[in-house]
Amino acid sequence: MDPRVVELQKRAAERSDVIGLAGGLPADELLPRDELARCLAEVTTSRENALQYGWPEGALQVRTWIAKRLAARGANVDPDQVIVTAGAQQALAIAASMFGRCTIGVGDATYPAAIDAFRRAGARVVADGGDVRYVIAGVSNPHGVARHELPDAGPVIVDEAYAELRFDGVLPPLSLAAAPDRVWHVGTISKTLAPGLRVGWLVPPVHAHAAALELKHAADLQTASISQAALGRLLARFDYDAFVRDARAAYAERAAALVDGLHRHAPALSFREPEGGFSLWIETDVHGDELAMVETALAEGVMIDPGGEFCPEPSTRVSFRVSYSHVEPGVLDEGARRIAAMFERFASR
Amino acid sequence: MDPRVVELQKRAAERSDVIGLAGGLPADELLPRDELARCLAEVTTSRENALQYGWPEGALQVRTWIAKRLAARGANVDPDQVIVTAGAQQALAIAASMFGRCTIGVGDATYPAAIDAFRRAGARVVADGGDVRYVIAGVSNPHGVARHELPDAGPVIVDEAYAELRFDGVLPPLSLAAAPDRVWHVGTISKTLAPGLRVGWLVPPVHAHAAALELKHAADLQTASISQAALGRLLARFDYDAFVRDARAAYAERAAALVDGLHRHAPALSFREPEGGFSLWIETDVHGDELAMVETALAEGVMIDPGGEFCPEPSTRVSFRVSYSHVEPGVLDEGARRIAAMFERFASR
Repeated sequence: MDPRVVELQKRAAERSDVIGLAGGLPADELLPRDELARCLAEVTTSRENALQYGWPEGALQVRTWIAKRLAARGANVDPDQVIVTAGAQQALAIAASMFGRCTIGVGDATYPAAIDAFRRAGARVVADGGDVRYVIAGVSNPHGVARHELPDAGPVIVDEAYAELRFDGVLPPLSLAAAPDRVWHVGTISKTLAPGLRVGWLVPPVHAHAAALELKHAADLQTASISQAALGRLLARFDYDAFVRDARAAYAERAAALVDGLHRHAPALSFREPEGGFSLWIETDVHGDELAMVETALAEGVMIDPGGEFCPEPSTRVSFRVSYSHVEPGVLDEGARRIAAMFERFASR
Repeated sequence: MDPRVVELQKRAAERSDVIGLAGGLPADELLPRDELARCLAEVTTSRENALQYGWPEGALQVRTWIAKRLAARGANVDPDQVIVTAGAQQALAIAASMFGRCTIGVGDATYPAAIDAFRRAGARVVADGGDVRYVIAGVSNPHGVARHELPDAGPVIVDEAYAELRFDGVLPPLSLAAAPDRVWHVGTISKTLAPGLRVGWLVPPVHAHAAALELKHAADLQTASISQAALGRLLARFDYDAFVRDARAAYAERAAALVDGLHRHAPALSFREPEGGFSLWIETDVHGDELAMVETALAEGVMIDPGGEFCPEPSTRVSFRVSYSHVEPGVLDEGARRIAAMFERFASR
């Protein structure tokens, strides 16, 4: 990411008067804070190896939970096929490293850190086509709508980071079940339970599991034992599905508040109403410098993610992502008003 | 690592009758379990962002602690130069990725996962020479003795994983202070406080910091917030130096027990007495298959690390690493006896 944008984001994060609509952060109020605090303390005092080294593939309890949920959706997955990673990001980085010098098709706009990870691994990242495809299932990021269809052939990295957070509660068809020999399945608890634990997972095709696990080991030996032990304990006594149901309703409320606000304050801005997830995506006809747009946003007391970093191929037209997830619903109308003011000021320079 | 050796190690770990002298694990009894449990619970309930996303460089509190300790040893280090990594392993992987296709000189035997990380990054790993050097300062692993001198020129990755655990308590000269423009400094709390938190650090040369930080972000976005928040809180109210002093004494006692046992039971085995750290290194004149050696060890009820994986260049003579760190002192004499029995049986096949 442009370090100047990062600098502005850090400045915004320190200012309580700025409404933070950048970043795909879950709502602080929704994280199961007390339950996790108890689990963390218990596994640490009870000698469950929460502080010790573990195996590179991750804790069996966590892998079993992941495999069961995938099996319930029709995939023939054994816990031994699952690799617990440091968030979905590491799963993406490992998958890409397995392909090396290739072309990865990601669509016209996608999760920026995936583009980064793919490029670092030696891939060329393009919008259309590609030897390998990357798709975000259920709710694409940044668009906030379903866009995924399983390509007919070739390896596919399927990222389900937001799949459980569709407002209609309908999970997307599981590509891993349909094409286990060419799907690299990626998931995470970062959007529901807590990104700060850094727990995600990769289910590579069986033939690639051993090599992917070696990459994981070389990268950081293993995912944090403390996070895995606490998560394992939490999941054993917690109704995860009920929890996600409540989270879904809360994010749907926020999405609706932002959408209403934008319709009211910025009727000219065009976007699709989000079907789930944390964000919506605004494409404009305005040409200009996105850094200047972010500076204008900050001057208006709002922070957004400039669109350029989401796009594998440069565009001269300005776009941006607006995340409603980390802001209380009552503030979102004012957030929309500031976006309208920002855009008016920026477009009329 | 040879997957057959991993399989044997897993089998050994599940058997309570096997004395585990493999792996560089800190003693379970020495980890500050209650203090960490309290800190984990407190930061989770108190909304210190322990569950939320953080910046890729890591928590300021942790980076400040690291920078201060390095400054006290003569380095001119600002917290902004420190990148918190997922253990020392990720610091090694990031450093190596910055060099890409090069030759890294590591000495005749070294930490196996460093060799892995370097090779994955595209480097050729050799014993002597190299465009880049890798050194383990203070107490080298697997030798358990000081071997480090700062080369006259060229980039150097200096790994201080065990530096604080020299039995004499004398820290090695800080290469980062002597050559900040070419030293990639690597440290960790895994050998003292808790490997399961997965917290280490990289201090790259100033000119390379931005690029290294981009690699960190692409790899996993950030190191676990929960680990960093709890560590920050622990370090703010905990006498780390006193803690490490006690740990040093405990490991010195274990080292002495193993050394005595080996002298008694296996006087023919040759090794240098460890000056610190967790292990000692045994080189033999015996030719043979190391997998068979590990199988023999398991049959005798003891687990060791076969030497081949420590060596960048293959040797036909068998060597192995023995770690006293994770076994209570009273058991080490029996461990030494089993090593003697293993070796006798293996050498006389």
